[in-house]
Amino acid sequence: MIKEYLQQHQQNILDRLFESLRMKSISSDPIFYDECIGQAHWFKDLLSSWGFDTEIFDPGTKQGLPAVFAQNEQIENRPTVLFYGHYDVQPDTPLKLWDSDPFEPVIKETNEGKSIFARGANDDKGQLFTFLEATQAMLKFNDGELGLNLKIFLEGEEESGSPSLEYILNNNQQKLKADIIIISDADMHKPNQPAFTTSLRGMSSFDITIKGAKRDLHSGLYSPVVVNPALVMSRILGKMIDDDGHITINGFYDNIAEISHKQKQQWEALNDDALQKMYDVGVSQPAGERSYSAIEQNWSRPTIDINGLTSGYQDEGGKTIIPSWARVKLSCRLVKGQAPDAVYHSVIQFFQDHLPDDCSLETKFNGGGVPYLVDPDDLFIQKAKSALDNVFDKPCLFIGCGASVPATAYLSEAAGGAPVIIGGWGQPSDAIHAPNENYSLNRFFKGIEGFYSILEEFKKG
Amino acid sequence: MIKEYLQQHQQNILDRLFESLRMKSISSDPIFYDECIGQAHWFKDLLSSWGFDTEIFDPGTKQGLPAVFAQNEQIENRPTVLFYGHYDVQPDTPLKLWDSDPFEPVIKETNEGKSIFARGANDDKGQLFTFLEATQAMLKFNDGELGLNLKIFLEGEEESGSPSLEYILNNNQQKLKADIIIISDADMHKPNQPAFTTSLRGMSSFDITIKGAKRDLHSGLYSPVVVNPALVMSRILGKMIDDDGHITINGFYDNIAEISHKQKQQWEALNDDALQKMYDVGVSQPAGERSYSAIEQNWSRPTIDINGLTSGYQDEGGKTIIPSWARVKLSCRLVKGQAPDAVYHSVIQFFQDHLPDDCSLETKFNGGGVPYLVDPDDLFIQKAKSALDNVFDKPCLFIGCGASVPATAYLSEAAGGAPVIIGGWGQPSDAIHAPNENYSLNRFFKGIEGFYSILEEFKKG
Repeated sequence: MIKEYLQQHQQNILDRLFESLRMKSISSDPIFYDECIGQAHWFKDLLSSWGFDTEIFDPGTKQGLPAVFAQNEQIENRPTVLFYGHYDVQPDTPLKLWDSDPFEPVIKETNEGKSIFARGANDDKGQLFTFLEATQAMLKFNDGELGLNLKIFLEGEEESGSPSLEYILNNNQQKLKADIIIISDADMHKPNQPAFTTSLRGMSSFDITIKGAKRDLHSGLYSPVVVNPALVMSRILGKMIDDDGHITINGFYDNIAEISHKQKQQWEALNDDALQKMYDVGVSQPAGERSYSAIEQNWSRPTIDINGLTSGYQDEGGKTIIPSWARVKLSCRLVKGQAPDAVYHSVIQFFQDHLPDDCSLETKFNGGGVPYLVDPDDLFIQKAKSALDNVFDKPCLFIGCGASVPATAYLSEAAGGAPVIIGGWGQPSDAIHAPNENYSLNRFFKGIEGFYSILEEFKKG
Repeated sequence: MIKEYLQQHQQNILDRLFESLRMKSISSDPIFYDECIGQAHWFKDLLSSWGFDTEIFDPGTKQGLPAVFAQNEQIENRPTVLFYGHYDVQPDTPLKLWDSDPFEPVIKETNEGKSIFARGANDDKGQLFTFLEATQAMLKFNDGELGLNLKIFLEGEEESGSPSLEYILNNNQQKLKADIIIISDADMHKPNQPAFTTSLRGMSSFDITIKGAKRDLHSGLYSPVVVNPALVMSRILGKMIDDDGHITINGFYDNIAEISHKQKQQWEALNDDALQKMYDVGVSQPAGERSYSAIEQNWSRPTIDINGLTSGYQDEGGKTIIPSWARVKLSCRLVKGQAPDAVYHSVIQFFQDHLPDDCSLETKFNGGGVPYLVDPDDLFIQKAKSALDNVFDKPCLFIGCGASVPATAYLSEAAGGAPVIIGGWGQPSDAIHAPNENYSLNRFFKGIEGFYSILEEFKKG
């Protein structure tokens, strides 16, 4: 029934998604504030038109971005499902590497058949729509009745470290109470094999600027007498990780847990996939800690990553200056036992400890989130797995994920400790956070079918 | 007589300079090609209108920038003076640090009285005009007759490594023959004490790009498995100079000469000035090789300088990517014994030697020039010194300079081995190559008077 429905309504469903993809809801750059607000209200209006009670959750600050909340009539003794997605997207830079306008979605042929190309095609507008459209199908089939209590929560700051999330969750705890949470912001194991992610890394993201002389200086007149902040930056960053891939920052690995032997064994079977994912982007050797496999490096080990470096002259040709400052954008992926704040401060301390005379630091925290772990034996998670086992060719796996969804742990807490199903229909080739982000039409529609089946399973109680 | 002339014609003289300062002759960025060409023809037309025979020297390539050449009637047995200046300027980035439009000169009060603020106010339009206006004064006083053979040569690519200079000099050797060369592109020792520079460092300027994965990647999904070129760049740059400021690149110091004991002693008396220059930009300790004084570091030691660093995300907030490439703009200051090409290749070799798996290099040479030394006892240089000793309060010094004027050695060779007077009326506070470049009106007009006196001295034969 759902299959026919999806075939019949394919164009309507894509029209809705595309309309959303055209909105430049880039949360990290204040220039797009109005577009983000517009996107939030667009979702509120859509869900109102589907019969939900909707609401905008205030972010608590002037520059913060609100969340969208929607729910059906909540009836006692029915299971309550809380869905989380985010309506914001990553920046579209560098624009010149896009083959088409990032905010004008197009469908093109790929290895997997037709795919949608646009910023947010996967992350997270494409992914969240697979859930929304599953509920829309259920409403159509049952005269507007879902048969379970549904709450939909769409965040607007996931791509910029969720600065307002804590405020929003604290202010709306009663409304967010649930038995099970579903987040659609992750990859399938393979294009035909779904997976639930039972561990996510946390994040701590920040800028560190090293300042030297008062102004940029002519290198002929001042070098090597005046300290060069770009060199100082390189020297400190270069010492941050040793030749074995081990992070040398004092206290960085304190209190973190090694994964269990059982988990390690399960993951070993998947290590070839991790290597293949690496080969696919043109790389032959895992670059992290030598004593861990590729999959362990990505799923269970903390990292410190240089996301951006800026100093001095950036344009064509030469400009012989000693720059007056150098900036690094760093983000750390965290595992159980690490806290975003503590890691941020230990990195600053490392910079401070290695800072030479005549340099000073400026630091700016860009946001963070704690890591999350869930028990795969939870009843809802087992139900959802068996629902998907009937929809896809291959059984749903329990995997780890190196990425971060800061909302996960906070959301679980706000919802009263409910377990979280972290699913989604992405693949590494979707190029999320990169130029030419895309999302396979097959996986998109199969994803709607998957969520439909999970909700039908939950409805049974 | 010259003093009254300068007072009378002050406005005309400034009008000519300001008209030139309004032209965006940035040679390093091809976007300004037309403005550079316009500036060349503007100088040609000006010098023609003053009665010189003028000519444009072709650069030999389509993208190259021409030189302007002008001469009076060349009469046998008169001394022949060749003047060198450059009509191109440094880029104006970062624009937001300028207090006024870099290409709309304004006069403002400074510690030294009134100063002109504009890109090129000193380097080199202001400096070259002090010579041009000295010849204009001589022509006015003597009915268009200078009493010596004068040749004026204005290059258009000094700020971008002079890629066409070799071709231009080779093609015009006969026209450039001279007994003495004057270059006006250097600092005075103090605002009231001129100096001739008897040594200049050479330069080798290049970009090195380290490439990693095929595209920017989501750091959550790929870190730390996929190599991060920004980290690799930092590690290599961090190893390039040791804790004592010594450059560790293999062969870097080969064949270079230490300065003589006599020179070292003369310079020791000037070291406090070098330290003061450093204090003035907010720095307390010399950052170069610990075993050399500040003045030796800057005047007689080679360097490798990071002029720019670019990788990954450059804008506001966070973007959690592993960048696919990182670029450094490097320039080396060279001393006697080093060649731009050889140094470029030794740096590339250093990068190659330290490059990990899955990274590759792309390199681009941006230009260079050999260092230059002249004998202070040369007769023309002694005459010029005594001319200036009569104009300024304090006697003209013989100093070194850490900067590079690639033309110097090439020009001397093209002119048949003529010695070079490297003078000028700059000061460190002029902020050349930086935002708010400026040039003191006092020094500008005193500089005209200085060149006038030197030419009068040479005229005597």
